[in-house]
Formats: sequence, structure tokens, C-alpha cells
Amino acid sequence: MLKRNSMTETTDRRRERRARQASAASAARMQPITYNLPVYELLNPEGVQRVHEMSMRILRELGIDFYDDEAREILRAHGADVRGDTVFFDEELLLKYVGMAPSQFTQLARNPQNNVTIGGNNMVFAPVYGCPFVEDLDGGRREATLKDFQNFVKLAYMSPYIHHSGGTVVEPTDEPVSTRHLDMLLSHITYSDKAFMGSVTSGKNAADSVAIAEIVFGADTIRQNPALLSLINVSSPRRFDDRMLSCIKVYARARQAMIITPFILAGAMGPTSVAGTVAQLNAEALAGIALCQMINPGTPVIYGSFLSTIDLQSGAPTFGTPESQTALYISAQMARHYGLPFRGGGTFSSSKVPDAQAGYESIMVMIPTVMARTNFVLHSAGWLENGLVSGYEKFVLDCEILGMLHIWAKGVDLSDEAFAMDAFAEVPPGGHFLGTAHTLRHFRDAFYRAELFDYNSAEQWELNGAPDTYARANAKVKQLLASYEAPAIDSSTAEALRRFIEKRKAEIAIEPRDA
Amino acid sequence: MLKRNSMTETTDRRRERRARQASAASAARMQPITYNLPVYELLNPEGVQRVHEMSMRILRELGIDFYDDEAREILRAHGADVRGDTVFFDEELLLKYVGMAPSQFTQLARNPQNNVTIGGNNMVFAPVYGCPFVEDLDGGRREATLKDFQNFVKLAYMSPYIHHSGGTVVEPTDEPVSTRHLDMLLSHITYSDKAFMGSVTSGKNAADSVAIAEIVFGADTIRQNPALLSLINVSSPRRFDDRMLSCIKVYARARQAMIITPFILAGAMGPTSVAGTVAQLNAEALAGIALCQMINPGTPVIYGSFLSTIDLQSGAPTFGTPESQTALYISAQMARHYGLPFRGGGTFSSSKVPDAQAGYESIMVMIPTVMARTNFVLHSAGWLENGLVSGYEKFVLDCEILGMLHIWAKGVDLSDEAFAMDAFAEVPPGGHFLGTAHTLRHFRDAFYRAELFDYNSAEQWELNGAPDTYARANAKVKQLLASYEAPAIDSSTAEALRRFIEKRKAEIAIEPRDA
Repeated sequence: MLKRNSMTETTDRRRERRARQASAASAARMQPITYNLPVYELLNPEGVQRVHEMSMRILRELGIDFYDDEAREILRAHGADVRGDTVFFDEELLLKYVGMAPSQFTQLARNPQNNVTIGGNNMVFAPVYGCPFVEDLDGGRREATLKDFQNFVKLAYMSPYIHHSGGTVVEPTDEPVSTRHLDMLLSHITYSDKAFMGSVTSGKNAADSVAIAEIVFGADTIRQNPALLSLINVSSPRRFDDRMLSCIKVYARARQAMIITPFILAGAMGPTSVAGTVAQLNAEALAGIALCQMINPGTPVIYGSFLSTIDLQSGAPTFGTPESQTALYISAQMARHYGLPFRGGGTFSSSKVPDAQAGYESIMVMIPTVMARTNFVLHSAGWLENGLVSGYEKFVLDCEILGMLHIWAKGVDLSDEAFAMDAFAEVPPGGHFLGTAHTLRHFRDAFYRAELFDYNSAEQWELNGAPDTYARANAKVKQLLASYEAPAIDSSTAEALRRFIEKRKAEIAIEPRDA
Repeated sequence: MLKRNSMTETTDRRRERRARQASAASAARMQPITYNLPVYELLNPEGVQRVHEMSMRILRELGIDFYDDEAREILRAHGADVRGDTVFFDEELLLKYVGMAPSQFTQLARNPQNNVTIGGNNMVFAPVYGCPFVEDLDGGRREATLKDFQNFVKLAYMSPYIHHSGGTVVEPTDEPVSTRHLDMLLSHITYSDKAFMGSVTSGKNAADSVAIAEIVFGADTIRQNPALLSLINVSSPRRFDDRMLSCIKVYARARQAMIITPFILAGAMGPTSVAGTVAQLNAEALAGIALCQMINPGTPVIYGSFLSTIDLQSGAPTFGTPESQTALYISAQMARHYGLPFRGGGTFSSSKVPDAQAGYESIMVMIPTVMARTNFVLHSAGWLENGLVSGYEKFVLDCEILGMLHIWAKGVDLSDEAFAMDAFAEVPPGGHFLGTAHTLRHFRDAFYRAELFDYNSAEQWELNGAPDTYARANAKVKQLLASYEAPAIDSSTAEALRRFIEKRKAEIAIEPRDA
């Protein structure tokens, strides 16, 4: 039970001032996050070895299906055992190719200050991906449009705690499917200067993505360091489809980075157990990574893990469950075991709105995500309703949490200054530390302060209209979008992009439908 | 992005049936929680040593005030250096007495099946403590009454994930201050059969608590294993007040357990840094624990840590901050370093209602609480508004999270059965695991399912009236309280209790006010 301090009365004024300062700055400078704390190792080395061995059994005895003739031919030519659509790997062959992937790489951003290093102790937070719907307090749940897409790119650009512009932040359902990828790429480049993702809707769209990256960064430059990072989903269990394989071929040949991610809801696309599901995920991810290295050794790849559970009574997906936390830690350990960057986690929830369930579930996933030292976190902000919805308010609330996790990851200062012995000498028993010289040296940045969390007294909160977190976040979204200013772009680049997209749209308009 | 399974349509019917079954059982059997995973050690051994040394400097150079003549006399007689109110400890003396405290003990409950072991890998979850207000969706925020007190005792009794009935779950403000402790103790004993806490409002009230425990458990029995666990707060910085010292003397002489808890909001009652605040907390907790052992060697004690931060711009307390998480991990490590059971954490929030902020903040504290392997968690359910409020809906929502953490703490099964190789052989690439023999063997208890979290499709959720988590929890509270059945109590015990309380109330009525 705590009493309120009289200083509270001036809070609102101070908050207002800081908000004005923030909006003047438009996009706060990106704050990278490196993890300086011990990584949480859930399994002991024997446990890691056991998962590895079970995965090797799956790859050797059951194999993985690859629905692309050329991909299977590449696998066969490099020594895999191909029978029909199914490819069987032995351990030595697999580890040889997995070992060719770099343990760390840098993805280029249009603004070089926003380049991101993926691997090691670095963490990169990217927005939610793939939502066909958006949601906010004013408009409720509705189909996402290109305007929404651009809004989420802007919000990600403006947050210092989001390091990456992401990919299909929402599905712009008002644009034709055949050319949507062009509008999305152009929006990332126009409304942000952070790194972004390539299209995976077809091999041709992947090629368009590479062509656009070449316009913006230069064809040679992107062969040195990738400018695209693209999401390759495994159609679990044990299956790479033709669309994903087409994209793998395009991106690997252009040496652009990929996240190879089995998408498994345990109980449906994987067995009804954590251990079995992780063994399956490990087998699937490694098989895809080996293929990338066979196509172009040294292609940057991330070991991906999208792994949650289903409600076994209804079949509905469930997030933040204890089993999914355990699986996340173990899959991160497996990626480290093979020396690969890891992708997993996010701020997942099944809730339809940013309510208590959304808060509980999001952190139940996000803390393990950070403590597993995840290198790339897709879905780190915005996710609602099993990923069907990107929530505007949810997005800015999640960013608040990402800010806290930035501080957490810094670790603890054990310097003499941090032990504050001079402050103890100054404060008698029962005194307070507010006026000490030590406090005056540190009060500005000592403790993280969440702008969107309410620390007012109940009385003050009532006077303010008793806004819940959803309502406060709604105001923040409006303030951010109203104060947005686009980053500068070189006019010849912009013109070249415009011409390329115009040309491709014209070509696509006359292409046969099944192309 | 996920598609919904058609099985969902029958969810509501199933949920209803399970709810009926649950209410028929009234109180589900308590599920103990033992932590079978690696403990998260945030500091390396040198870091632990450095915090230890800084604490020893505080104890040796600055000392701790004890505002009780007899307590100081005991400290002096056992070798401490007493000057005025201030007591200085050298390391050897302090560690000698700290070393006399047991590393683990069992607290008795009225129902022996609900006895709790405190220490080692055991965790005990207890309700929120000390709230003068309650809050629910129907009645809003209001002063707590004895009726509310009894309701929270009932809710704690009915949850399988709450192991302890707690103490002042809310402040029954409609009862006279002088006799309130008697009503609270009687309510714990009457409405629950789980273990409970003693009064710390005065030495006399502590003595009443011991007398009541003797009636229920027997005077000899409680000298073997404590029946009371009481919360001794240090008035940080560096101060034990007369009230707490009176209680320490009573409880230590009766060999009843105590939690010695510095109560520090860093920036106000501690310095503006994590390291300094933890060093202070460590010094204060160890000084109190040493005193308990001087009074009665072997008295069971818990090393307590109530440590959060303030908003340095307003002075308001803040919870779930990254700094408070770090401090929680370190203080848990210090307790383990001295071989003492640890208390810390809870589901803290500054929010006024169980909204997204409450969800985010609660888990930001509760996951570190569990991963630090906290042995006793006060405030594990119900906390809102900096602990001023116990929320009815928040209580049942927090219990849902405690259930998940029970599963998490069990660790991971790496048996052959868990690797499910038979299921892989059964399911072709692209197939699903729902019908496998392995799934049929495990679907009942494979994955945790939160009853209060909504996993319905958006369409179904809309049809259900689009209830947010607050509204769903409100219905659950009503269902639980309506189906409550009191545990049996021996009639002679009940009669002896009634007589004792009647006698004490009569005595207190004629006692002088300052007694």
C-alpha cells in the first residue's frame, strides 16, 4: 500500500511538454538493443543433443518434401537422397551445408544509421506481419488498406524501439493481389528509412523485390550485405511448397537474407508435445537452410521458429501458453547450437482488443523472446487476434514494452557510482534519497518511465476521465500520425523507383493470370 | 495469420460443462508448484560478492536503527556494537546468526494437505496484502469491508493455484481497528483451510495471533512447525520501528515464521540505482534476520524483497519496470547466497482497472518472480493501483496466469514418448496430428488452456457480446462466490475460537487507548 507524493500534481504538465518535444522530433533516433545479460539456457547440453538426434532421425528416416523440381535436383546434386518429392538427409551432409551459413550479418537500411546487425548479442525488433485486418478504438475491426499499411510503416519509423520496417505489416486488401507487393515495397522505402523485407508471394515478386533493392542500394552493394530479409515459411509438417522454393532460389542467388521458419501449432501441424514439436521444427529449419547454402554458400539465413499451441478442445490457436514459452527457449538454444541467428517470439495474443488478456499474453511471449536472446523478432508490435489483426493502439503499447526491454537487456551497473555509497552517508535512517547529490546526478535517466502507463493517483485519473490503457494509446496513435514527417529520399532514386514500378504494373496487367 | 477450426462451434458448450463440474467441486485441490527448470542467475559469483561486500560496509559503517530498547539490548548482548538507536554489525557476527536460520521449513495449514514447504525449489503463491480498497466492474472502487475480506479468502481457497490464504488480503475498514485482527484471523480459519499469516499491527495483536494458532493447532505442535507466517516490514532506509520489533519478539519467542522485508521504492527510500538499492535491501534484511536468530536460534525466516522504483518526475511508484526486474533477480540471488528462503515479486501494477497496462505490468514482474525461483510470493493475485486496491476480476485473472506458471515450472519432458516418433511416422508431409494415437494419448492434458482468455473467432466473440477480459472475469467471480462451500471445521475448535475472540474483544473494549 503506497501513499502518493505531492509532486504528482505537475505530472500532466510535464507529460504535455515532453509530448510536444517528441512530436517536434518526428522520428526518434533508433535505439539498438544488445543483450548484455546471461542467456536463459533451458536445456542442458545433453538435452540439446537429444533434440538434435531426434531431428536427425526425422531427416534421415522420414525426410522432407520439396515441391519444386529444380530444388530437388539441387539437393540431389549436393548429395541428398531424393525419392519422389521427398528428400532424405544424413547428418554429415546436413551439418556441412548448415555450417556454411554466417553466424552474423548486417542488413542494409536506406539510412545507414539504421543498418541492423543480425546475430550474436544483437536483437532486432520488427512490426507484426501478414494481418488482413486492422483494429482501433474509433473504427473497430476492418479490412486493411494501403493507407493502413503506410500508417503502420510510419508508426514503426517513429518508434526508437522498432529497428526494422518489416514486410507485409498489414495486407493492403484494396490493391490488386498481382501488384500489391510493389505498393508495399514502395511504401517501406518512401515512408521509412529503416530496413525492410522482400516479397514471398511468388518467385517473380521476389525478383521484383531484388530489382527494387538494386535501384535503391546498388546491385553490387547488396551482394556484399543484403538489403532484403524475406520470410520463408515451411508448410509444416515436413513440406516446402513451390512458391516458397521459387523465392528461396531467387533470394539465395541474389545473396539476400532469408528467415527459414517452420510454422507449427503443436497439436495440429506438430505432435501434441513440446519435445516432438521442437525436434520437427529443428529438422525443417535445418533442411531449408541447407538448401539455401547449396544454392549459394554463405547466403545469410536466420533459423526461424514460429511455434505455438492449439486449444485441443476447439482447435483454436493459443499464444503465451507455458508450452510455447518452453518451445521458444529450446528452439533458440538449437539455433545457437548450430551457430545460426535466431528468429522467434513476438507480442502474441488471441485477444480481439488490447485488453488485459492482450497484455498478459504478449508479455508471456515477449519476455522469453528476449531472455532467449532472439536475434530477429518479427511481430514485436501490433499483433492481435492470432495475427489476423494489426491493432493501432496495440502497436504503440507494445512499443512501450520494447522500450522497457531495451533497458532490461543492458544489464546491471555494478560500478562504485551505482552502489551510491555517498548517498547512504547523506541519508539518515528513515530519510529519503530524493535530494541527494547521487539522485541529482542520475534522476534524468535512472528509471524507465512508460509514457502510456498511468501512474496518476486514482483521484487524478478520475479527473482525467478515467481513461483505460486502450483510450490513452488511441490518443498517442493520433498524436504520432499527425506529427509524422517523411524521411528525405534522393530524387533520382525516387524517380527510378517510380519508373520501375510503373513499368512492372503495365507488364503485370497483360501477363496471363497463372504467371 | 491463422484460419479458425470448425471445431470451435462446440467450445461454448464444453466450457459450460466444465464450469459446472468446477463449481460442483467448490474448492479444487491445491496444486503445489516446484521449480524444475534452471534458475535465472543474473549476476556472476563476483557480482554477488560485490553486493555482499557493499552491504557489509553499510552494516559496519552506517548501521541500522532499532527503535526498541529490549531489541537493542539483545543485539548488544549478542555482540553487536550499539550506539544510541543505531546498531553496527561486523560481517562475522552477522553471518554467524544468519547461518542459524533454516534454509527450508513447513508451515502448517488447518487442512494438512495444504501444508506448505517454504524454501528449496518450492514456490508458494499467496494473495495480495494490505489493500484499503477493493474494485470490481459492478461497484467500482470503494473502501474494503470484512465482507470483502471474506470474499477474497473464499476466492483464494477455491483456486488450485493459490497455496496460502495470506494475511490482510484487504483492510476490513468497517471493523474497529483495535479488534480487526481477530476478525481477520477468524475469517481465514473459517472460510479456508489453507495456511495464513499473523497480525503485525502490535505486539499484543501478534500475541493474539499466537494464542489463536495454539487453539487451532496446539501449543506444542506450532513450536515444531510454524502455523503463522508474518510480514515484518523494514521502514527503509535502515530502520526497524517499535511496532515491528514488538512483533518480531513475540513471533521469534513462539518460533513462528517471519518474512523480513525491506520496503524500498528506489529513488525515494533507496538510492537512484539498482546496485545501491539491492545492497541496502540486503543489509536491512540480514540485520532483521540476525535479530530473530539471536532471540530464538532456528526461528524460520524468509529473506524478503519488496523493491520497485519511482517515477523520478512525479514521485509516483512504478511497477514492472526493467530496473525492478533486475533488482528482483539480484535480491533472490542474494537470499540463495545465504541459504535463505526468498520472498519477492507478485502481479504488481499501477493501473486502476484490469486493463492492458495491468496485464503487461503484472507479467513483467511475475515471470522474473518465477524464474528467480521465489519461494514465497505475496501479492500473487488481486493487486491493482500500487497495492491500494484489491481487484476482484484482477484476482481471478492473475490466478489464470498462476496456473500457466505451474505448468511452465514443471520443465520439459524429454522422454521417448514426448518425442512422439510414432506420430511422425503416422503423419505424411502436410498432414495433421489431430487424429494420431499420440495425440489421443495426450490431448486431455497436453497444453494449458486458460478458461478466462478468449480463443473464439472474432465472429463468435461478437455474437457473445464482445466481452473484454474484465467482463469475462466479472462473470467468473460471481460464479465462484455463488458456488462457494466452506471447508469443515471441528466444532470444539470453532467453539474455543469463538470464546477466545469474545473474551479478547471484551478486554480490548476496556483497555486504555495507547495500550
